[in-house]
Amino acid sequence: MSKNAISNYVIRRLPRYYRFLGELESGGYVRISSRELAEKMGLTASQIRQDFNCFGGFGQQGYGYNVKGLREEIGKILGLSEKTPMILLGAGNLGRAIASHIDFQNRGFELVGIFDANPEIIGKKIGDMTVTDTAELENFCHENHPSAAILCIPKEAAEEEVDRLINLGIRAFWNFTHYDIRMNYKGIAVENVHLGDSLTILSYGLKANINE
Amino acid sequence: MSKNAISNYVIRRLPRYYRFLGELESGGYVRISSRELAEKMGLTASQIRQDFNCFGGFGQQGYGYNVKGLREEIGKILGLSEKTPMILLGAGNLGRAIASHIDFQNRGFELVGIFDANPEIIGKKIGDMTVTDTAELENFCHENHPSAAILCIPKEAAEEEVDRLINLGIRAFWNFTHYDIRMNYKGIAVENVHLGDSLTILSYGLKANINE
Repeated sequence: MSKNAISNYVIRRLPRYYRFLGELESGGYVRISSRELAEKMGLTASQIRQDFNCFGGFGQQGYGYNVKGLREEIGKILGLSEKTPMILLGAGNLGRAIASHIDFQNRGFELVGIFDANPEIIGKKIGDMTVTDTAELENFCHENHPSAAILCIPKEAAEEEVDRLINLGIRAFWNFTHYDIRMNYKGIAVENVHLGDSLTILSYGLKANINE
Repeated sequence: MSKNAISNYVIRRLPRYYRFLGELESGGYVRISSRELAEKMGLTASQIRQDFNCFGGFGQQGYGYNVKGLREEIGKILGLSEKTPMILLGAGNLGRAIASHIDFQNRGFELVGIFDANPEIIGKKIGDMTVTDTAELENFCHENHPSAAILCIPKEAAEEEVDRLINLGIRAFWNFTHYDIRMNYKGIAVENVHLGDSLTILSYGLKANINE
């Protein structure tokens, strides 16, 4: 309960802290002050302390933070030690790129199946996985119990598949479609990636600068 | 100047309004009230009116909004009518997917060149474009004047290339790397897409629900 009370904005900053601390650890850092961490991350020390206070502060300010310990704590909050079985729907250009490009293990997931409805794509290899017919979803989910799904399918297909997937036990969607899952289902974790919207925002940013 | 004073959160909601209004227009809607639009988008009518008031309100509330006109107005604010020439650096899995998957024209850009440093990738076709050697960037930019770039290259490569690209006239980056451009350069438009961070947030969302 208390976890959910923490501001969404603080939560969204945690992956970046986690990444930075990983780089510091690889670079041989053992301890770091909030001031030094702030400087490296382009934040203020007080912002960092405020963020960390949401989770109990993570250690003594006077001595700085233990880099490895702090990274582990943040990883625990993000649930990264437990690998949730995840499936991918849609093995077109974007789906293939996601399957090949993303480091699932370090993000708290394990990719266990790739599905497509297109007969020309079914049976093809992506890395060491074979694209399976979407018609096999029921059998697969009953055997492998994935609880998360990536949607790289058209919006209309997503509207049909989300219901089916929730009935099969999916509780989290990494949603690359424009279908608004959150508006239609409650108690389901959804993370939207709207690449087109992101590019549109860049258009605004560029042209607002030009017109200044 | 005044444009930049508008909250970043309002700006980030505009692409979604733009998309929804496009769907309404295709569906034959001519006018829509803020209440009806709110219902369809899972917002409140007052939130919509507040957002639109940032840009002068877009028409009379009593009669509802003209769907086509409102969409055009939002498109203008986002700078979508002007197509900015854009190049892509990095034609690996992700770069290829971006080049094939994204509707640049409707986002205010035109993809004019794809570059890679890997001899095995240079010369390959992506759609109707050929991957060019990164060594050709200077010649290409002097001839074609792109002012935006997509970075689908490793972080270390990004650290080297951003300086070069800015010198070649690039003023906007769609950044898929973890290199923090905004921290190092001012007056440049940057839109970061951190897919790994997004997946990490989903891990949190799923596990926070489970532990509830």
